Amino acid sequence: MRKGDAVADFDFAEAMDILHRTPAVLDEWLRGLSDEWVMQDEGPETFSPYDVVGHLVHGEKADWIGRARIILEEGEGRTFDPFDRFAMYEESKGKTLPDLLDEFAALRAENLVALEAMELTGEELDRTGTHPELGTVTLSQLLATWTVHDLSHIAQIARVMAKQYKDEAGPWREYIPLLDR
Amino acid sequence: MRKGDAVADFDFAEAMDILHRTPAVLDEWLRGLSDEWVMQDEGPETFSPYDVVGHLVHGEKADWIGRARIILEEGEGRTFDPFDRFAMYEESKGKTLPDLLDEFAALRAENLVALEAMELTGEELDRTGTHPELGTVTLSQLLATWTVHDLSHIAQIARVMAKQYKDEAGPWREYIPLLDR
Repeated sequence: MRKGDAVADFDFAEAMDILHRTPAVLDEWLRGLSDEWVMQDEGPETFSPYDVVGHLVHGEKADWIGRARIILEEGEGRTFDPFDRFAMYEESKGKTLPDLLDEFAALRAENLVALEAMELTGEELDRTGTHPELGTVTLSQLLATWTVHDLSHIAQIARVMAKQYKDEAGPWREYIPLLDR
Repeated sequence: MRKGDAVADFDFAEAMDILHRTPAVLDEWLRGLSDEWVMQDEGPETFSPYDVVGHLVHGEKADWIGRARIILEEGEGRTFDPFDRFAMYEESKGKTLPDLLDEFAALRAENLVALEAMELTGEELDRTGTHPELGTVTLSQLLATWTVHDLSHIAQIARVMAKQYKDEAGPWREYIPLLDR
């Protein structure tokens, strides 16, 4: 394989390819793992792997696709509703991790069907909306961020689980910067 | 689900549960992704997702299980051979990412069968070996590190791919620390 060109510039199909995969990746990784792995976080107001999946579920309901529709239908005049990063602390109550993985997979599939059905043109990808804190953003920036948000939370899950073996790794700890991040 | 106790203290079964899953996680995530996603790295002497999978393959051949055997059979008297972190730059040549994913899955499965067949006791997990740079290490530290090493490279793959959208995310970049790590 050759060293590829950078993805550089937002490419809708490339982004979709990541967005489609995340539910199955999380499922292979987390379903059936013990609570010891999935319920630990990094301290107050941080996320356990279980919290992350709940947070992703909330994003499918309250964030990405809804904001895409606002940009396309209402433009900059209608500021996005603020997104509650901690909504899952309440919303996940009573749900198991397998429940959340199922819910995430179903919502993500549904949202990507809706997104693909929009058949977005380059002109539409450049349309703008108003973020409550960040100001003007484009639809392509929203979709790129959705993609990066998945990847960022995968990295977070890996870090949170790895840290459980911070001491257990003994002297090897110094070779693994993730353990002290 | 309750907030779990920390994994705290090395638990063989817990570690195995992560080690068993990594090949399928990487397969769901990376097989069939475009070169644009999998062949980019972070600069000289850094790893692309493709490089990471090659590095994991090399670890299955030259690192973990071999060192476990040295600890059990020869103890501290026989210093481990140094591990070449960059061996995959040569070793992966001519192989596709799907080749490497297949190879990793096969080697990992084989190594975990061998590891389980050792039926390690607590006394054996406490046995020691000599790392060429780190000095005395225990078998349980080796196995914890193997586990953490998987998780660390999953986080790395997520980071490397996410960085491709550093600019594409626009103003959202400031919300995603991973993009500037």
